[in-house]
Amino acid sequence: MSFPWPEPGTPIAQIPTPMPLIDEDRLARNIARAQEYFDGCGKDFRPHVKTHKIPALALEQLAAGAIGINCQKISEAEVFADAGIDEILITYNILGAARVARLRALHDRIGGLRVTADSATTVDGLASGFDAARPLSVLVECDTGGKRCGVQTPEAAAALAERIAAAPGLRFLGLMTYPSVGGAAAVEAFFSATMALLDARGIPCPVRSNGGSPDLFKAHEVPSATEHRSGTYIYNDRAMQRAGHCGAEDLAMHVLATVVSRPAPGRAVLDCGSKALTSDLLGFSDYGRIEGHEDARITTLSEEHAVVESIGADFPGIGEQVRIVPNHTCVVTNLFDRIVFHRDGVVTRTLPVAARGTVW
Amino acid sequence: MSFPWPEPGTPIAQIPTPMPLIDEDRLARNIARAQEYFDGCGKDFRPHVKTHKIPALALEQLAAGAIGINCQKISEAEVFADAGIDEILITYNILGAARVARLRALHDRIGGLRVTADSATTVDGLASGFDAARPLSVLVECDTGGKRCGVQTPEAAAALAERIAAAPGLRFLGLMTYPSVGGAAAVEAFFSATMALLDARGIPCPVRSNGGSPDLFKAHEVPSATEHRSGTYIYNDRAMQRAGHCGAEDLAMHVLATVVSRPAPGRAVLDCGSKALTSDLLGFSDYGRIEGHEDARITTLSEEHAVVESIGADFPGIGEQVRIVPNHTCVVTNLFDRIVFHRDGVVTRTLPVAARGTVW
Repeated sequence: MSFPWPEPGTPIAQIPTPMPLIDEDRLARNIARAQEYFDGCGKDFRPHVKTHKIPALALEQLAAGAIGINCQKISEAEVFADAGIDEILITYNILGAARVARLRALHDRIGGLRVTADSATTVDGLASGFDAARPLSVLVECDTGGKRCGVQTPEAAAALAERIAAAPGLRFLGLMTYPSVGGAAAVEAFFSATMALLDARGIPCPVRSNGGSPDLFKAHEVPSATEHRSGTYIYNDRAMQRAGHCGAEDLAMHVLATVVSRPAPGRAVLDCGSKALTSDLLGFSDYGRIEGHEDARITTLSEEHAVVESIGADFPGIGEQVRIVPNHTCVVTNLFDRIVFHRDGVVTRTLPVAARGTVW
Repeated sequence: MSFPWPEPGTPIAQIPTPMPLIDEDRLARNIARAQEYFDGCGKDFRPHVKTHKIPALALEQLAAGAIGINCQKISEAEVFADAGIDEILITYNILGAARVARLRALHDRIGGLRVTADSATTVDGLASGFDAARPLSVLVECDTGGKRCGVQTPEAAAALAERIAAAPGLRFLGLMTYPSVGGAAAVEAFFSATMALLDARGIPCPVRSNGGSPDLFKAHEVPSATEHRSGTYIYNDRAMQRAGHCGAEDLAMHVLATVVSRPAPGRAVLDCGSKALTSDLLGFSDYGRIEGHEDARITTLSEEHAVVESIGADFPGIGEQVRIVPNHTCVVTNLFDRIVFHRDGVVTRTLPVAARGTVW
C-alpha cells in the first residue's frame, strides 16, 4: 500500500509525521536575498545542492541568477544533469578507473562539468580518462584553514596547477577552498599568493572559488574570489541562525513531529528520532529547537523517539504536533525520500529528494 | 544511468564506496547464537528489524526460530507483511485517525499484529478503530528506567491494562519495556509487581516483553519476561563490542571507504562522512574504528568527508580502501537504499534496504 502524499491545499496538521516542511515564502526569499547579495558584490554564485538534492529547487536557484551548481558526488551530478542542468562543479577528488569512466560519461553529455583535485594521484587518474579533444576543467583544492582536504601551501597549489595544465586531457581552471568559519583573511592570502606564483609561470587562473553558508554575506571580504558556493542558506537551520547568517524569520525548514507520550511530569516524547533529525549537534547541547517552547530541550534521541525535558505547562499533549528547527538541515533532507512544501501551513507541493541515496 | 551493482563473485575492492558491507558468516553466526541462547533459556525471541530493514534477513531470523518480528512504524511493518511475515509487534504509540485506519488495514491482512500503548489517549484511539469481531492485541509499555515512553508505576500499568481489557475492539496481551542497560532487576520488579496486580483483578497477562541488544545474553536475569526483542545483535557494532555483547570476530558490518586525500602529515580524508556513518557518537569520542589502524581516529565528519588524524606510517594511500566498524549500525543502514553482502571479501549478494524511507 503506497503512502498517500498530501495534495496541495491540505493543512499540514493532516500530514504524517515526522516530516520535513519547507516554507515556500522563506525559501524564495532565501534564494533571492543571497543572489541579490552576490549580484551586488559582483561575484558568481554557485549553490551547493547537497542541502536539498532536489532538481526543481536547483532550477529556481539558477533562474534567480546562479551560474551553475555545486555537487559532492558524480551520482548527484547525474541527477541534476538529467534535469537539464549543464554547469556543474563536483568539489571532490574523483579516484579510481570506474569513477573516472563514470565522470567521463557525464562530461560527454553536459557542457560545463568541472572537478577539483588536491593531489598528483587524483590529477593523474583524471588525466588518464580524458583527452585533448575536450579536456576536463580542474580546480586545485586549497586548505585555507578548514583542515579537511586541500594542498597546504601556495607553492604546492601552483605545482599541482602546472601538473594539470601539462596534462593533455585536463584544463587548469583555478582554485577552490572550503574555508574555516571566519577565515576570509586566510583565503585571500592563500588565493592571492597562489595567483602571483601562477602569473609568474604564465598559467591563467580564471576561477577562484570560495564557499560556506555561515560566511555567505561576508564573501566580499575575499576580493580575489570570483565565485562563492553555499548550500544551507536555501533552507537555513539552527546553526545558521546561531552563526548570525539568518534570523528566525528566515528558517525555511521545520521538522513536523507528533507528541506520542507524556510519560512523566516535565517529560514528553516525540516521534522524530535520530532517523528524522540525525544526531548532529554542531556544538549545541540538544537536538533541535521546538518552536514556541524555548525552554523545552530535546535531550535524548533514539531512532524513532525524541525525549523532551523541561517542558512547560503549555506543552502540547499526546497526539498534538510541534515544529522543530533542526540543528542541521542538510542531513535531515538526506533521510527522507520526499518532503512537503507549504505556504502558511497549507501544502503547496511535495517533491522527491531525487539525489539522495545515490552511490559514487 | 543506473548504478551497476556488483554481481556475486566481485571482489569488494572493486565496489564503490562508501558502502556498508555485511559479512555473511558473521551474520549467520550472530543469528544462530542469539537464537540458541533464547532456546536454551526458554524465552521467545523477537528480532527488531529496524537494524536491517531487509525482509530476507527477517526471514532468516524466523527460520532460525524467532517467533515474530518487532517494528517501530506501521510502514515498516507493511514492508515485512508484504514479504509474508505474519507475526509483527509494533512497539509504538499509534496515534491519530489516519494512522489507526492504516493499522486496521494491516490487521485485516495478517494474523499476528500487536502494538503497545502507554496512555489512555493511545488506547482510546486504538479502541475506536477496531472491533470485537477481531480485536487488536495491545501491550502496556512500562518505563523501567529507560526514561523514554512508558507508564511510570505498576499501578498505572494495571489501570491501563484494565482500560484495554474493557475496550471491545482491543485485547490486553501483556507488558513491554525497553529498559536501561543493566536494568534487569528493575524490569523484574516492575513486571512482577504489575502481574500481581493484574492477577488480583483477574486479568490474564500472557506476554511480558523485554528488550535491548547490549543485555541480550542476560535476558535470563528477568525471569518474568516471556520474550526478548533485540535488533543490533544481527550486525553488531562498536558500541555492542564495548558493552561486552560481542567480540571483534562478531562484527558483521563494516563501512568500506576510500582514502581521497592525504593533505598533511598525520591526516587522511575518507569518502565516508556523516551521510555514510552518521554522527552518532554513543559515548565515543570519534566516529568509528578503522580496522587495522587502531591509533587512527576519525575526529571530524562533514557530510561526504571523514577527517582521520593520528594516522600511522602504514596508513593506506590515496585511492586505497579501509574498513570501518561503525559506532552504531542501525543508523548506517538507514542511509543506504541497498547494501552489499560478502564472504571473505567476495560479494555474495546485494539487497535493497526495503523498509528505509517509509513514512508513518
